[in-house]
Amino acid sequence: MYIVILAGGSGTRFWPLSRIARPKQLISLTGDRSMLQRTVERVLPLKPKRILVITNHLQAEETEHQLLHYRSVPIDVIAESAARNTAPAIGLAAAIIAAHDPSGVMVVLPADHYIRDEVALRDTLLDSRHAAQNGYLVTLGIMPSRPETGYGYIEADMELRGEGPFPVKRFVEKPPLAEALRYLDEGNYFWNSGMFIWRADVILREINTHMPSLHSSLMRISFNDDVWALSDLEEQIKAVYQDVESVSIDYGVMEKSSNVQVIPVEMGWSDVGSWSALPEVVEPDGAGTVCINAAEHIAIDSSGCLIYADGRTVATVGVHNLVIVSTPDALLVCDRERCQDVKKVVELLGAKGQISCL
Amino acid sequence: MYIVILAGGSGTRFWPLSRIARPKQLISLTGDRSMLQRTVERVLPLKPKRILVITNHLQAEETEHQLLHYRSVPIDVIAESAARNTAPAIGLAAAIIAAHDPSGVMVVLPADHYIRDEVALRDTLLDSRHAAQNGYLVTLGIMPSRPETGYGYIEADMELRGEGPFPVKRFVEKPPLAEALRYLDEGNYFWNSGMFIWRADVILREINTHMPSLHSSLMRISFNDDVWALSDLEEQIKAVYQDVESVSIDYGVMEKSSNVQVIPVEMGWSDVGSWSALPEVVEPDGAGTVCINAAEHIAIDSSGCLIYADGRTVATVGVHNLVIVSTPDALLVCDRERCQDVKKVVELLGAKGQISCL
Repeated sequence: MYIVILAGGSGTRFWPLSRIARPKQLISLTGDRSMLQRTVERVLPLKPKRILVITNHLQAEETEHQLLHYRSVPIDVIAESAARNTAPAIGLAAAIIAAHDPSGVMVVLPADHYIRDEVALRDTLLDSRHAAQNGYLVTLGIMPSRPETGYGYIEADMELRGEGPFPVKRFVEKPPLAEALRYLDEGNYFWNSGMFIWRADVILREINTHMPSLHSSLMRISFNDDVWALSDLEEQIKAVYQDVESVSIDYGVMEKSSNVQVIPVEMGWSDVGSWSALPEVVEPDGAGTVCINAAEHIAIDSSGCLIYADGRTVATVGVHNLVIVSTPDALLVCDRERCQDVKKVVELLGAKGQISCL
Repeated sequence: MYIVILAGGSGTRFWPLSRIARPKQLISLTGDRSMLQRTVERVLPLKPKRILVITNHLQAEETEHQLLHYRSVPIDVIAESAARNTAPAIGLAAAIIAAHDPSGVMVVLPADHYIRDEVALRDTLLDSRHAAQNGYLVTLGIMPSRPETGYGYIEADMELRGEGPFPVKRFVEKPPLAEALRYLDEGNYFWNSGMFIWRADVILREINTHMPSLHSSLMRISFNDDVWALSDLEEQIKAVYQDVESVSIDYGVMEKSSNVQVIPVEMGWSDVGSWSALPEVVEPDGAGTVCINAAEHIAIDSSGCLIYADGRTVATVGVHNLVIVSTPDALLVCDRERCQDVKKVVELLGAKGQISCL
């Protein structure tokens, strides 16, 4: 089994902790290891043959640095010359794996998700390996715990079998609330997690069918005898990516293929979409407050605050439901319901030329 | 004219900017010079013969340091061995001045007040000098601008003369609101500013009458021929202060003397009692926000915030009426109406042994 970790994401919703050169997957939301490091550690017990980390050239150095001390499994960091969404990144990883081991099973995992029950994830991956080996595109479906309108859903055909993987009827875009409530009720709809397991040759064949242009670009890459010697890959990726369109694997392949199965899993998953998701990652105290990385937190008549400090002492007096994030050069104080507007802060800083804080 | 600046105050209401060794008078609330430095600069145009700064031995070094570059007037920093409220500090200053110039007029000013109209202060001091030379204890009474229940008041007898100084009928402790409203209405009540002007020999005589024990303690100090050579004064102060009680000049002398006059003044005065007084010192912007010492302030749907940063960029999103104070080792986020509870934060930090932040 090969693990492919998609670590090329960017984003500004965790400003000021996340920055352009240090996006969400490279920061530590729990105060210790980064999201990427936790993603790697999560799969090490599976003893994969190799881990491929696909990232962006801007973040490659920090990504390499964060992975230096994991030595039990070979880890390759592959730097894309440009961000082109998930289909090219997954295709590139599949091409590299297939050059060495065509029918190798590859697991695709985002680098910036949180999973409380890591055993459940590993068990699910092991359970789904058989379907992957048999040529299915298997996707992990998260059991919905609320009528979330911010996620895509996968409708499963659960009539035929008692256990998963189940055939996929369709992929659904972010639904309105009434529909999300119905999905929750019907029980055969799952959140689209962006986690996949399949054979390298199978996903390349599917890419060839549904995204022939991407496939022919990928086929232009020539590999040495030792495909893992990636020293000359960078130039080839740069050449190939000039012709590659930015498309997600969901849109490019999954929604079009008739070969997709979903395996439901309940594992305390969170995509940690903004600061307001911090309580999904770190258990709040009795006052509903999460406080990470403070020398001390003095709370007087305060509740529901999500605090991420930089080793400083933090005092809150008479305040409620605030996000407070302190870094050496920037400070954010935000209403907890307004976390989606943090990206506007970054836009305004850019417009004012305050690039040192971006 | 001699200027005596009382700079021995302590206090925790401006935490985390103020600390035990750096109380309010030694910090800069405006982002540039400290309250003490501004107090000195305010009186330099009066060309006083000398400025005596009475402080505490804990703060003496920082006090000396802050005054190093004022060279147009001799400044002496006198360190008390213990804090004993204002009567001993004023008595000590009077004894030093009287040893050199018995009938010298001395102005007493707190080091931690803000005065917007500095010309009005200086004009008032010049206007009141005549009454001081004639042997009165003159106190500056601030024209009240609101029915403040947190200050003491001075009732003036304004029947006899058109202009001040006026004889003082009585000193009033912090009044209930109904009474404060009546004072505002009647027009002959003024806020007790703690600013005085009198002759050194006169205040010593009054101390002898009303606080004979303090007077005899002070008289034990022996001065060299050059009284300003204060090198051996420290040991003498230490010896004398062992017997000295902690009493305010108001309680010890002013409320008991029949020799007191008040001169009303309107000068944009604030005693800057807590973070909530920041808008009295720095003009708020259109959203009612004050932001000091931030590299940049990005405000999205925010208003009424009082922000004091440490060169950092600050972003506020959807928050209102907060006090936000950031220093390299501590961060305070406080409801603007709860500023009086900041001292509780300091107490709790002390109880938790977090002494590095105190």
